[in-house]
Amino acid sequence: MAEEKFEVFDPDKLQSFSTRAFEKVGVPHEDAEITSRFLVQADLRGVATHGVAHLAPFYIKRIKDGLINVNPKFKFMSRAPGTAVLEADHALGFVAGHRAMAEAIRRARNAGAGFVAVRNSTHYGAGTGYALMALPHDMIGISLNTGGRGAAAPGASGRTITINVISIAVPSGKEFPFVLDMATTTVAHGKTEIAERLGKTMPEGWVIDPEGKPITDPKETGPRKGAMTPLGIDPLHGAYKGFGLAVAVDILCSILSGYIPSPQLYDEPKSTGRGNHFFGAINVDGFIPAQEFKERMDALIRYYHALPRMPGVERITLAGEPEYELERERRKKGIPLDPVVVKSLKDLAKELNIEYDL
Amino acid sequence: MAEEKFEVFDPDKLQSFSTRAFEKVGVPHEDAEITSRFLVQADLRGVATHGVAHLAPFYIKRIKDGLINVNPKFKFMSRAPGTAVLEADHALGFVAGHRAMAEAIRRARNAGAGFVAVRNSTHYGAGTGYALMALPHDMIGISLNTGGRGAAAPGASGRTITINVISIAVPSGKEFPFVLDMATTTVAHGKTEIAERLGKTMPEGWVIDPEGKPITDPKETGPRKGAMTPLGIDPLHGAYKGFGLAVAVDILCSILSGYIPSPQLYDEPKSTGRGNHFFGAINVDGFIPAQEFKERMDALIRYYHALPRMPGVERITLAGEPEYELERERRKKGIPLDPVVVKSLKDLAKELNIEYDL
Repeated sequence: MAEEKFEVFDPDKLQSFSTRAFEKVGVPHEDAEITSRFLVQADLRGVATHGVAHLAPFYIKRIKDGLINVNPKFKFMSRAPGTAVLEADHALGFVAGHRAMAEAIRRARNAGAGFVAVRNSTHYGAGTGYALMALPHDMIGISLNTGGRGAAAPGASGRTITINVISIAVPSGKEFPFVLDMATTTVAHGKTEIAERLGKTMPEGWVIDPEGKPITDPKETGPRKGAMTPLGIDPLHGAYKGFGLAVAVDILCSILSGYIPSPQLYDEPKSTGRGNHFFGAINVDGFIPAQEFKERMDALIRYYHALPRMPGVERITLAGEPEYELERERRKKGIPLDPVVVKSLKDLAKELNIEYDL
Repeated sequence: MAEEKFEVFDPDKLQSFSTRAFEKVGVPHEDAEITSRFLVQADLRGVATHGVAHLAPFYIKRIKDGLINVNPKFKFMSRAPGTAVLEADHALGFVAGHRAMAEAIRRARNAGAGFVAVRNSTHYGAGTGYALMALPHDMIGISLNTGGRGAAAPGASGRTITINVISIAVPSGKEFPFVLDMATTTVAHGKTEIAERLGKTMPEGWVIDPEGKPITDPKETGPRKGAMTPLGIDPLHGAYKGFGLAVAVDILCSILSGYIPSPQLYDEPKSTGRGNHFFGAINVDGFIPAQEFKERMDALIRYYHALPRMPGVERITLAGEPEYELERERRKKGIPLDPVVVKSLKDLAKELNIEYDL
């Protein structure tokens, strides 16, 4: 799909439109605003697969289908100053995530580090937004998430384990913040969707069939056949590391919150879009003065930037750097959305009988 | 090198021999015992590259060369209940690591989570040993380490970044503990050494030359030419994830402890074997009762074990499972060591004038 067919949208208008859509299906105003802010933030940072593209088909539909509870009873349970569990009562993942991360930050302010494990939540979009919440507090933010059951464990046949996500945000001084945001699979599932939309074949190593053979036709990814490989592709190239990271995320999200393993969740009915999270905040001032830390982060970034480059390579970029630059640009120039997404928003306006003013 | 040429050694005798060797070069008895316990534990768990094979060429030699301080002045600095920095004064990494992890565990008992960043340390062997210290306390143990400058950042030419390590140990009930122990590179550096000893070529993807082309001759790994690829091999298969994890580890170990980036450390003289660490302990009882957690971990392990298998696959194993089984076997039957290592121990006995009683 050619970029020139994309329309450009004002981020504030997108956010207000999304907020009204959520309110129309019963989400309280504040929760609708929080959710819409996270959605638009994903689009601003170029994570198009986790932005307003999901508004109609994921969240509004699932609320209407009764898979997401718009009036959840949150219950925090804590047994130590720095730690807690949130029972999220099938809330919108964004709302549960926002509350839980705020709680982790609050606890980190006193204890030095704060962690909240969240069970019975739903899809929370891109993990980065929660990790970024820590930065104004001079804390390192951590957000972990269990996703859909679409990946392969080494030696296992088919889509056997969940695609989990690790997000880590670190404050800096004058430089951009370091933000690692990664699935525990070789590539995020969205990359197969993009290949399918563009009519391209995928490189070997992204997706395998139930016998472990490579799949390169993106249309064969999905419940019928193709499973995402764990980061590392195969055991010879580190697949046990990607698998191990996925299980570690599952333990922190699902077991530490008093729940069942995330792939097992998908054996149950009505499990679409459900998941567990784990949030952490580490107060850098508990180690060294925050100002010193941020200056040292700036120096770290500059050191890595100045590494000797391979021929033809213009610059070395660190995690979060391209997204930071894109967000600055898109806040000024707007967010380009592809025609499929634009149509979904127009249809949604009609369906919900809200004004389409984008 | 054929396994039948290996001699088998009693772990207790190896530990006592190693302890006497360290004492002979000035390491206090308790520190010599701690260090030797970690070395032998690595051999018991099959991490032959981080066991007594390193005793003579790494630790004893570096102590004699003045690169390791056997009488360090440790200084803990803390600014919050759950967090601290340890200035390790170029101590043996094992001794610094043991003290720091014990401190993290102590802090986690009250705060829920405890973290200690360690600067100015030296090589601490296998990361697992420190993470495992958390298990008897019903805590999740985390051990991060910056290693030697032997890996490639995406787009950078040559050995530009350090090979960092992530170790996470999680307690279980009746099952083995989950123990993830991974380098942030596609494979650990030791695998290239093993390929070289066995006279084998390496698969493409492990090592690249300064222009990014694959190197398969293990002899070409090393300062002259070959750099380890980050986990993910190349940008198309997730190399930015391995790179991002490496930088995240560097931030937690080096910047949070008030230091410089780990690759920069290697621009300095006398930097051989130096490094920084980060230790964490998360008290599971701060989230849910430890007994419930361990039962849920057993259920998680059994769930993953029971995943449908690919044809020809006998079992699905989780991180730490093969090492756990090997340790049980070797505690009974002894540790096989290859002739090169055996000779290094015999030579060491002569050099230090201590009894060779293995």
